[in-house]
Amino acid sequence: MEFLKPIIQRIDKELSQLDLPQNPASLYDPQRYILSTGGKRFRPALTLMACGLCGEDPEKALPAALAVEMLHNFTLIHDDMMDQADSRRSFATVHKKWDTSVAILSGDSLYTEALWQLQNLDPAIDFRAMNRCFLEGIRAVCEGQALDMEFETRNDVRLGEYITMIQGKTGGLISAALQMGGIAAGCGADRLAKLHHLGMSLGIGFQMQDDWLDVVADQTKFGKQTGGDIREGKKTCILLSAMERCNKEEIIWLQNCLEKKPMPDEDVLDIIGLFERTGALEETKNEFLGYYRQALDDLDAFDPSSHKEDLTRLLETLMMRDY
Amino acid sequence: MEFLKPIIQRIDKELSQLDLPQNPASLYDPQRYILSTGGKRFRPALTLMACGLCGEDPEKALPAALAVEMLHNFTLIHDDMMDQADSRRSFATVHKKWDTSVAILSGDSLYTEALWQLQNLDPAIDFRAMNRCFLEGIRAVCEGQALDMEFETRNDVRLGEYITMIQGKTGGLISAALQMGGIAAGCGADRLAKLHHLGMSLGIGFQMQDDWLDVVADQTKFGKQTGGDIREGKKTCILLSAMERCNKEEIIWLQNCLEKKPMPDEDVLDIIGLFERTGALEETKNEFLGYYRQALDDLDAFDPSSHKEDLTRLLETLMMRDY
Repeated sequence: MEFLKPIIQRIDKELSQLDLPQNPASLYDPQRYILSTGGKRFRPALTLMACGLCGEDPEKALPAALAVEMLHNFTLIHDDMMDQADSRRSFATVHKKWDTSVAILSGDSLYTEALWQLQNLDPAIDFRAMNRCFLEGIRAVCEGQALDMEFETRNDVRLGEYITMIQGKTGGLISAALQMGGIAAGCGADRLAKLHHLGMSLGIGFQMQDDWLDVVADQTKFGKQTGGDIREGKKTCILLSAMERCNKEEIIWLQNCLEKKPMPDEDVLDIIGLFERTGALEETKNEFLGYYRQALDDLDAFDPSSHKEDLTRLLETLMMRDY
Repeated sequence: MEFLKPIIQRIDKELSQLDLPQNPASLYDPQRYILSTGGKRFRPALTLMACGLCGEDPEKALPAALAVEMLHNFTLIHDDMMDQADSRRSFATVHKKWDTSVAILSGDSLYTEALWQLQNLDPAIDFRAMNRCFLEGIRAVCEGQALDMEFETRNDVRLGEYITMIQGKTGGLISAALQMGGIAAGCGADRLAKLHHLGMSLGIGFQMQDDWLDVVADQTKFGKQTGGDIREGKKTCILLSAMERCNKEEIIWLQNCLEKKPMPDEDVLDIIGLFERTGALEETKNEFLGYYRQALDDLDAFDPSSHKEDLTRLLETLMMRDY
């Protein structure tokens, strides 16, 4: 997304110039490390664009954008421990490169440094509202992650519960990122509610699309093995949607397949066949496209500007992505 | 400490009435659990007393006091994981009662809920200053904990570095607790600086005294085995002070002893003998008494009040404790 480059570069520059102390090295080195491993910088870009969308210079929202990105990286350090992941963005995860104690503590500290960024906001900005919005986002992310973990040991998860989970886990911080841009611009409650809704729609749509791409994407473009979620027995929205459309026999067959580790390739293909046959695949596509359309509708409420054009382009590009 | 009872009861009542959600249960049950296991409620009591000391109704500082106590309990959840501790306050630790993923995430969430308490402060209170002071305290605690962990694998820790470590790990939050009471009362920079210094002196004195009591206390009163730190090979201020006074031969003997797991009782007694002979024990006592006296001196700057009397009594009671 070429048009986003200047924004991403602005964020990367600020992140590389953060004045994190040198010592204790075991506390701050892991933070510098994870922030240097890249990532799409998608959330802080939304903060800057939302500030512009609401008629202010995006620079005003820069401390909030940094807070959002640092918070996101803190959640990655702790999530990777919970998921026992060895690598992220092609780099060793913090608990692998150091150890679990370092990962717990440097994560806590990165959370603290994220909050600290808000202290750098212009005094004219409503600090209390900004802090509240950020905390609401973090709370939603924690609740979503807890639900996700609870789902792992449950066999009766409903599609509606899944939506609630991704609303928190994915939607929470995206929605906060947008609203924080709005608060930096001095927006009133009406426009903040629009930004909140936009963020939730985008978050849910994006995550459902991710589940969908796992089944249909060209694996050379997607960068992951097609059907990876199926092999892992993940409760994606497609699986849950299919299960709500299956008869008893099919459910028993499906649960039987999901217990096989590793799952044979032919079972993966059969499950994809079931996803197609039940209409779960098609339905999921319609669902996520609907969420993207809602997000685009939310944008309509804002006055025309280059920032609005950028956000529209971003949403349309994401909506059409095939990887 | 009978005179503190009304304050502690006030805090306990508020903590038991926190409106933490019921779900996700894996997120909020561990938080309710650790907050219900008691603890001295020493830090939040300081916040309320400091607010009274500065001439305001202590009730004004209640949200800040709750934030401090909740933050403290969050650090316990994560510290117990790093220390691989099985129990705390005679209850199973969170990662033992649930698991490590639950402990990481419910800790993160308790940190978030602690920050959230500040949103309940009276709008007339300087929210931004309160938030800043709290974050400074948390940052100090994280840095102190990181140093403490780094010390475990080092054989060349100096006494001065140890003081820096406990300034952060113990002094950071005590100092923030007092200052937050002052901020709730609308104190200026001068009195806040006094409260900061008071908190640091108290934190350092209290921790050095803890190290000292580990060696000299009557184990039936102290509730821990005498010499427990020696057996664990902990780098306490007495050990570091003794090592700075030993000759080469004694250091080699000492390091040899400390490597024995489990350490024979006669070695523990010999090490205590060395602590006495080198004067490290006496010196540590003088040091911590000096810190308590500094804390009492800091109190002098404040106008007479019942809160000042309570704080003086608290400091004197702690100073004389033998357990």
